Amino acid sequence: MEPTGAAAVIIGNEVLTAKVVDANGPHLIQRLREVGIPLRSLEIVPDEVDVIVEAVSRARLRAKYVFTSGGIGPTHDDVTVRAVALAMGRRVVRLPEMVALIREKAVDAPTAESLRLADAPEGAVLIAQPGSWYPVLTVEDVFMLPGVPQLFRTQLEAVLAKLSGTPVHLRVLYLSLGESAVAAALDRVALDMPHVAIGSYPTFDRALDYVVKVTVESVERAAVDEALSRLRAGLPEGSVVRSE
Amino acid sequence: MEPTGAAAVIIGNEVLTAKVVDANGPHLIQRLREVGIPLRSLEIVPDEVDVIVEAVSRARLRAKYVFTSGGIGPTHDDVTVRAVALAMGRRVVRLPEMVALIREKAVDAPTAESLRLADAPEGAVLIAQPGSWYPVLTVEDVFMLPGVPQLFRTQLEAVLAKLSGTPVHLRVLYLSLGESAVAAALDRVALDMPHVAIGSYPTFDRALDYVVKVTVESVERAAVDEALSRLRAGLPEGSVVRSE
Repeated sequence: MEPTGAAAVIIGNEVLTAKVVDANGPHLIQRLREVGIPLRSLEIVPDEVDVIVEAVSRARLRAKYVFTSGGIGPTHDDVTVRAVALAMGRRVVRLPEMVALIREKAVDAPTAESLRLADAPEGAVLIAQPGSWYPVLTVEDVFMLPGVPQLFRTQLEAVLAKLSGTPVHLRVLYLSLGESAVAAALDRVALDMPHVAIGSYPTFDRALDYVVKVTVESVERAAVDEALSRLRAGLPEGSVVRSE
Repeated sequence: MEPTGAAAVIIGNEVLTAKVVDANGPHLIQRLREVGIPLRSLEIVPDEVDVIVEAVSRARLRAKYVFTSGGIGPTHDDVTVRAVALAMGRRVVRLPEMVALIREKAVDAPTAESLRLADAPEGAVLIAQPGSWYPVLTVEDVFMLPGVPQLFRTQLEAVLAKLSGTPVHLRVLYLSLGESAVAAALDRVALDMPHVAIGSYPTFDRALDYVVKVTVESVERAAVDEALSRLRAGLPEGSVVRSE
């Protein structure tokens, strides 16, 4: 079966060592949800070629679109291009189009290191983005975004403008009983309707008016409605505090 | 080589679908750093047995300690125990010790579903935590923590109290030049001293007094000092704005 949806690989020693809190993962999650592209997984890995190769290969098996964050600058810890090339069985080549952009941008003659920004897996395509000289580096459906959050966000929008998703319908039930008391009712509907995703989330915050939040979602609205009425029928009487 | 450090698997459809922003991953990253246990990777996966089995197996190859978050309640979407058992080639059994705790806690007779909380991979050990009836479910060095952030945090502390880490020495240089101008100097030291982790992080915020932040770290203080003086010697004159 052709993989669908997206998977993310965040390349970041700085995140794993708590030097910065990753902002790109949560932002990507939010934006993919908004445009209706399901996210299959998100992995945070160190700046190590072997580990990135594995993570990208896995992401490509799981999902149609792969987003990487970080590791595409000119320094020794920027190994994403090489890793993506290895994961896709391609050579790393210098893109003449990108060399031209770097030369145009540079005040003096560009350093050897700055030209490393022009290295990419063979067959890479540059997606121009409005308002920036720096294009999005793309190979097939792998999008190599920069780790700097400000750049990540603008480049992500350039990519999302080219993709299309399917919005998800979501309904929520808030229950006054704990998970153990409602599990049987949830089980039955979840088992009968595998195409509807039913989530159950307890809270232990007594200031709230509910004990368990149940989410029901699907790309088919009718399926959500049916699951919802089955749940209402099956749950212990009076246990639904409210719905959304 | 025996794996060291930790790896994390966050089990959470609710995170991947942007219903909640994951708080457990960032908290775990921060606490592991504080106690000096290096984190090798963090993966966010859906509530699907096969995907969790793979992620946990991979985490165990990469790291000595594996922390999972979420999926250990009594409902249909709680599949972590089963997945961890499969990843470790163990059966799922009902722990009499846990059944006793659940019976003690329950006001009425416990439901069949609430007893699912007593299911665990064979050979699991319960780590009692002060101030809560609910122990930490552990198999070898795999710690199955709950997804509810409040519970995750208290259970994590119960686990960390039993582990020991090695604090990392960190120094930071703030540079006035861009990455392309300093990459050659960083490269040389990174290549000569592979046991020191050197990170390079550009910023594009012009309100800041630097352009690139360079981090130098190692568990050996002397190695950090040496790398730092080599960097200072190799970097373009006047490029170090300040250090920390």
